[in-house]
Amino acid sequence: MTVTDINYDGGMVRWEPGSRERLVQAAFALYAERGFEATTVADIAERAGLTERTFFRHFADKREVLFAGSAELQDALVRAVAGAPASLAAIEAVAGGLEAIAAVLPDVEVARRRQRIIAANPELQERELIKLASLSAALAGALRGRGVPEPAASLTAEIGIAIFRIAFERWVDESNRRDLSALMRESLDEVKAVTATA
Amino acid sequence: MTVTDINYDGGMVRWEPGSRERLVQAAFALYAERGFEATTVADIAERAGLTERTFFRHFADKREVLFAGSAELQDALVRAVAGAPASLAAIEAVAGGLEAIAAVLPDVEVARRRQRIIAANPELQERELIKLASLSAALAGALRGRGVPEPAASLTAEIGIAIFRIAFERWVDESNRRDLSALMRESLDEVKAVTATA
Repeated sequence: MTVTDINYDGGMVRWEPGSRERLVQAAFALYAERGFEATTVADIAERAGLTERTFFRHFADKREVLFAGSAELQDALVRAVAGAPASLAAIEAVAGGLEAIAAVLPDVEVARRRQRIIAANPELQERELIKLASLSAALAGALRGRGVPEPAASLTAEIGIAIFRIAFERWVDESNRRDLSALMRESLDEVKAVTATA
Repeated sequence: MTVTDINYDGGMVRWEPGSRERLVQAAFALYAERGFEATTVADIAERAGLTERTFFRHFADKREVLFAGSAELQDALVRAVAGAPASLAAIEAVAGGLEAIAAVLPDVEVARRRQRIIAANPELQERELIKLASLSAALAGALRGRGVPEPAASLTAEIGIAIFRIAFERWVDESNRRDLSALMRESLDEVKAVTATA
């Protein structure tokens, strides 16, 4: 039996199993080979053995392929923070959310390839900053949902995102052999140490 | 005596005293009246009673007028952190840097007008995120210069910028009557409270 799906324009289209993953892999390979700028959506679709129309069913543009996991990451973070025991302090609920992020992230080699592509392109770095700002706003919202007042909610969210960003940078560093969870726990301990009142 | 200046193209040009300030005021007024998108560099120069050529001696583009103070702000922050007594903990050196920022910022009404312009335009919000990321990187560099190792330097810098950003948002809120220094000190105390180990 052929699996079918209703397309956005109302027509019945064939659903290619794994097409999203094939597009991501084709895009990553081409961005690494030719650079992000020189790669077109047509190139990506061709490499994946799919049509451009299929590409645009999955992604708004060629940048979004690199940020395909960000909605899932945000969901994992918000769900973990919202679901943490009410007795946990805000910063510990955030720590649990960071563990949940580590669980949905890809393999470190995939993350390194992605990082190299983003590091080579200022437009992608801007997009990364915007995604992190959205993640911080969503995290602050989850904390307010736990009854944390402002400005504590926004400050705690910013601290959580800073821990994530800096641990992530260390994780994707070529010389690193430690896992992301350990690096995030270490960063949280550093934050507690640097903010401790003498 | 006429004050003269060497122009970027090597010619001697008349230096109009206060031209930079006149351009900033004209741009702010036009962005508020017509919106950022609908305002051209020609409009700004005309309103200021200056030429487009003079505009481009001061600013790379019409966005940069809104970020004209960011280099001065970064200098004030870095200088204060680098010059703080060696005995001060990193977070306290950052607190001193934040006080130095408050001293170079304009009047709250100017900051509010600027904030309304930026809030209406996603492209300007992106530029703001980039400027804040640069500020954080410069602050981390100043902390490393004080002997703070990584990742503590980057984490402390991110915390400092989070305190600045969130206190700044509260400061420019129309209903706020408190000064920025007080709001930053309160945010720092909040950070210490939320990260305190139980």
